[in-house]
Amino acid sequence: MADLTGGKADGTSLHGFFFPRRIAVIGASNDTARIRGRFIVLLRQHGFDGEIIPVTPSHGEIQGLPAVPRIDAIPGDPVDLALVAVPAPAVVGVLRECAAAGVRGAIVFTSGFAEEGGDMAAAQAEITRIAHESGMRIGGPNAMGYFNARGRVAATFSQAIDTEEAARGIDAHDLPGGIAVVSQSGGLGFSIYNRALRRRIGGDFVVGTGNEADLGTLDFAGFLIEDPAVRQMLLFLEGVRDGRRLAPFARRAAELGKPVIVAKVGRSPAAQRAAISHTASLTGSDAAFDALFAHYGMIRVHEVEHMLDHAAAFAMPVLPAGDRVAIVTASGGSGSWLADGLAAAGLRVPELDADTQRRILAHLPSYGSAGNPVDITAQAMKAVNDVLEEVLACPDVDMVVLVSPLSLVSRNPYDLERIRAAIARWRKPVVFYSYTPPSDFMRDFAARAGAAVYSTIDGCARGLRGLVDWARFRERFARREAPDAEIAMMREAIAPLLDAHPPGAVASEYDSRRLLEAAGIGGPAGRLATTEDEALAAFEAIGAPVALKLQSPGLPHKTEAGAIRLGVADADALRRGYRELMALADRVAAGAPVQGVLVQAMAAPGIEMIAGIVHDADLGPLLMVGAGGIHAEVLRDTAFAPAPVDAAEARRLVDSLRMRPLLDGVRGAPAADVDAFVELARRLSVLAVAADGRIGELEINPVFVHPAGAGASAVDALLRVR
Amino acid sequence: MADLTGGKADGTSLHGFFFPRRIAVIGASNDTARIRGRFIVLLRQHGFDGEIIPVTPSHGEIQGLPAVPRIDAIPGDPVDLALVAVPAPAVVGVLRECAAAGVRGAIVFTSGFAEEGGDMAAAQAEITRIAHESGMRIGGPNAMGYFNARGRVAATFSQAIDTEEAARGIDAHDLPGGIAVVSQSGGLGFSIYNRALRRRIGGDFVVGTGNEADLGTLDFAGFLIEDPAVRQMLLFLEGVRDGRRLAPFARRAAELGKPVIVAKVGRSPAAQRAAISHTASLTGSDAAFDALFAHYGMIRVHEVEHMLDHAAAFAMPVLPAGDRVAIVTASGGSGSWLADGLAAAGLRVPELDADTQRRILAHLPSYGSAGNPVDITAQAMKAVNDVLEEVLACPDVDMVVLVSPLSLVSRNPYDLERIRAAIARWRKPVVFYSYTPPSDFMRDFAARAGAAVYSTIDGCARGLRGLVDWARFRERFARREAPDAEIAMMREAIAPLLDAHPPGAVASEYDSRRLLEAAGIGGPAGRLATTEDEALAAFEAIGAPVALKLQSPGLPHKTEAGAIRLGVADADALRRGYRELMALADRVAAGAPVQGVLVQAMAAPGIEMIAGIVHDADLGPLLMVGAGGIHAEVLRDTAFAPAPVDAAEARRLVDSLRMRPLLDGVRGAPAADVDAFVELARRLSVLAVAADGRIGELEINPVFVHPAGAGASAVDALLRVR
Repeated sequence: MADLTGGKADGTSLHGFFFPRRIAVIGASNDTARIRGRFIVLLRQHGFDGEIIPVTPSHGEIQGLPAVPRIDAIPGDPVDLALVAVPAPAVVGVLRECAAAGVRGAIVFTSGFAEEGGDMAAAQAEITRIAHESGMRIGGPNAMGYFNARGRVAATFSQAIDTEEAARGIDAHDLPGGIAVVSQSGGLGFSIYNRALRRRIGGDFVVGTGNEADLGTLDFAGFLIEDPAVRQMLLFLEGVRDGRRLAPFARRAAELGKPVIVAKVGRSPAAQRAAISHTASLTGSDAAFDALFAHYGMIRVHEVEHMLDHAAAFAMPVLPAGDRVAIVTASGGSGSWLADGLAAAGLRVPELDADTQRRILAHLPSYGSAGNPVDITAQAMKAVNDVLEEVLACPDVDMVVLVSPLSLVSRNPYDLERIRAAIARWRKPVVFYSYTPPSDFMRDFAARAGAAVYSTIDGCARGLRGLVDWARFRERFARREAPDAEIAMMREAIAPLLDAHPPGAVASEYDSRRLLEAAGIGGPAGRLATTEDEALAAFEAIGAPVALKLQSPGLPHKTEAGAIRLGVADADALRRGYRELMALADRVAAGAPVQGVLVQAMAAPGIEMIAGIVHDADLGPLLMVGAGGIHAEVLRDTAFAPAPVDAAEARRLVDSLRMRPLLDGVRGAPAADVDAFVELARRLSVLAVAADGRIGELEINPVFVHPAGAGASAVDALLRVR
Repeated sequence: MADLTGGKADGTSLHGFFFPRRIAVIGASNDTARIRGRFIVLLRQHGFDGEIIPVTPSHGEIQGLPAVPRIDAIPGDPVDLALVAVPAPAVVGVLRECAAAGVRGAIVFTSGFAEEGGDMAAAQAEITRIAHESGMRIGGPNAMGYFNARGRVAATFSQAIDTEEAARGIDAHDLPGGIAVVSQSGGLGFSIYNRALRRRIGGDFVVGTGNEADLGTLDFAGFLIEDPAVRQMLLFLEGVRDGRRLAPFARRAAELGKPVIVAKVGRSPAAQRAAISHTASLTGSDAAFDALFAHYGMIRVHEVEHMLDHAAAFAMPVLPAGDRVAIVTASGGSGSWLADGLAAAGLRVPELDADTQRRILAHLPSYGSAGNPVDITAQAMKAVNDVLEEVLACPDVDMVVLVSPLSLVSRNPYDLERIRAAIARWRKPVVFYSYTPPSDFMRDFAARAGAAVYSTIDGCARGLRGLVDWARFRERFARREAPDAEIAMMREAIAPLLDAHPPGAVASEYDSRRLLEAAGIGGPAGRLATTEDEALAAFEAIGAPVALKLQSPGLPHKTEAGAIRLGVADADALRRGYRELMALADRVAAGAPVQGVLVQAMAAPGIEMIAGIVHDADLGPLLMVGAGGIHAEVLRDTAFAPAPVDAAEARRLVDSLRMRPLLDGVRGAPAADVDAFVELARRLSVLAVAADGRIGELEINPVFVHPAGAGASAVDALLRVR
């Protein structure tokens, strides 16, 4: 994990940054209305119990603390963290002094660097250089700093940590959740943290990273994910400075069993425009990020509250064993509407078994209902604890939603100890859905009970769906093994084939196929013929009918060039076809060498699919699978994952296609050999890795997936070398 | 509109119900902790200035008001509204007394009727009878009553109207919005109303209708939609008692230009199960309801907050002229993320023209950005009013989102009068998106400014998308004309064709085609032949190649039965084909009469689509259009609308198909004749109406849509008569 913290430092180097004992406030001021005056106020207010040293030449004392004129005038041990909010032109000088004085870390709050352009962009580059040369880790510039609730370090000027919750004495460290928030945009990051607190989701860390001259999002995220108190991470990414570091971080989080909920800006042209003007980082290929997130179980969201819908679910003490939800409601209408919402999210709301229903009905008035939704009616709310226990005991139930208005501020019908005990006994998540805005009283209650609170149907469905998906991901991930031996073997086999092509070259179908064959991916039998007689011999060996395809690296689109003959059934047609194709060669191959004519068996029928490899500049090689024909072109029915994938992951991709039901056979067609297509995709992904980044693009289009047991064939293939 | 208020009463009969001058509280009590004791408290608390008459035999005075022992002991004018909360077994007797005493309206709050089953279901039927016989309109039983903010009538026991807002002196009548909430579930209805108030969306009415023994959702909705102060309606439907009344209500709301935001339970099996147990109403065919809602511009939502996202948008004083949004942000990250969210909702966030950018930049620091998102930076917030005016003046902008933290409680940088004036001048909606939870201070401010407030990206995108869709719907609806003359003509033409088939009968392709031809929907030329010689004559008249199809009402699936010959190109093949098909007749036509063999020109090539009519039990005839072949079967790529539709509406359906791009031509194929397919669908919808409910199902599968200008052909057709 050392690589995740970047620069020269090792993985533990940020401990002093986040848990400093000595903090210097450079440019400290007595004017607490100014940013430079607020650090000491906030540090004290939030209970920092280390040493605070104001650094300013103009006063001997700041806010009652003795000040030093310069950083190198501080006696004793090195300073762990310097908070820097001096004017932009002075920042580089101050950082040089800090580095020289042996300061371990610094945060630059001052703005006006890369986002300003020109000289100030150069100043930002200088900040990077200072960090790399001195080993002092630097956050910012243009940063909002961080808040460490456990360590009681408010290394920020943000008013956003003065929350209602803080005023009421609620400590983020004591709430369930274990969140850490890391955001390039500090305003948004602290807002996420505050909104989480409002929903009684707690955790120790929030960081606003700013321009990331030295320390970047993945440095912070990579350090914090290792903290045992961090149970889940909320990431807001505007751009990723070094995309290649994202996968190792994602893998590590998955290994630790910690969900990462990620918002990634840059799906739209407008956001991409803004990213260019607003930070130095590009937004990357969005589909590639989606693929990477899904592959590592990271949960992508497009909205802060959606982030918290997931975080609330992950804050609970247990994961569900399946996707079956029981609804226990005091309002028939709300219960039914919720059932619709859960079903729309793909969750099941099964009718309960007769025995469970009978036991539930014993607690209800005659007009109650136990089918699921279990309608206990507003009149029988006192029975809710009994009913909850009956429902949790039901073997057909994996999770329970309690529906009731949580706006109440007294007369709470729920029994804290019974709910806690029931969750612990049955190991099934229990959540509240309130159709009225929940009161703080009930939010506090639910947090103690270990139950998430949702005030929207939408959010409840999202949270539970996310839990189910995460539980399933964990199972898949636990069985995932890197195919190292297979990669090594394949690397050896394909190296000479790749060496034969210069970077940027397009290979003929014949050469592309040889690469696939080295990966164990076959197609219709075929031979390359360079003379008419060779073609005839191939025809006789293969058997009629055959396809003839002119082969040249200059001919990527053979059909359009008329360089294919299909269904060639006799020797005359074969000879004629060979001559015609070779006669075409000069015209269509655009000056490239012509290898000859591929004589190929006609492919057995099958469902048309595509599979391929694409190389993403940020994230490396990706496996692609998709529907063939017009589905691919018109509906863009494709799915991606970072290579390599195992069979379970390849199957997940195939199962995610909209046309997936076609493979099960429609209109009387037999079911297709999905296993074979999954295996083809898996091998292709191993090939992608074994090529060590030299495959720019490899498309098998079409793959024919034959009836079950009959395999899948690569009918055409096209390779572009990087 | 008289039909919308149901029963015997006319459309104005609910005035006394909602604006009573004399209210009798039957079973009134001095115990204000009980429901029966709360009515007088709430009526007074909310400023009811009419007469309140407690009715109870046990006390001479209730809460300081003189009581009468029985309803018929009330002297003077008839009572407008009786509030009934006596025990269930006493309800029918009390209502009989009310009716006898000339009481105009009553609300029964008592529960335990249809939802209880047995005797009490019979009691509910008796309530219905009393209403129908006496003309007294009855709400409930099991109702939550209503609140009329303008008339200051709190005819409810719901604590839910004691809002924070009421406590702060905020009057729902004074807020922008003009909402009326009508909900079968009173708890949910009042919760919607309260959540609206929290978001500073106001309006005069909220009604919880309960079991709807007499007055139903559409009675209330139909009355309230006519109220000039009602600008939009929020409907929560668990089931629709009489689906045929929904379309007239929806049309009337559209005529009045009032958006109806509707939540309709019953998408999932679990909700359908609950509806059966919980109310008397069935949930109906969900896709049919979707079709009806979309046809009349009703906005369906699946979540209370989504309802309010729309209501907040419709509360604004202006509609957008297009879908182009400018974002003015104080936070780069939030602005970009919002741009992603708006783009995902299909809204455009265009780069602003150079001139506008230049004028905006004059107000910004050097590191600001004017491209769109316009990043004014946190430091330059004071420029926001100037920038807003520049952006509103830009001709490429239809709406503006102001992004900033609205958690502030002072130092508001926005200028109320300038914003109001700018909105009025440019007639473009302006909304706020706050990435922090908005303060009441800023919510009040925005309400006065005429700007909606969103605290989620999701909600902001939904609200603006809804505005654009509504504006477009209004344009389409304004041009919509009922094709009365066409229906009348077609009715005459098709009556004999329909008369020829008994109810439930399936017609042959030949007979189905004759119906289509009467509607002006043609296909490949064809003739019915009943002898080999007739077949030959038809072949010679039509020209080779032809298709031969055995015709019998007993043969709906000709292909599967082998009863089709395609590409018949010469006289021998024709004769042989004719004989073979006729020889099949006895075996495949299942004893039904055989009409002969249809000799038909082979259809010219085209894109395969389907179109049809289905009859919905609740909503009547629906037009269906869809993608053909596997798209229809596997992807269920179909769209519905209630018949009849005009060309614009038929086009909307076609445009909504996922495979729509296929019709524009892919892989070098020419663009298809979309206009012709749209016209075919339009005519089919007129036919559906002209059939007066006698078409159970009519499917044209496939329709071939030929290249542009070459029309569309009904290649096969199947009719089932009702």
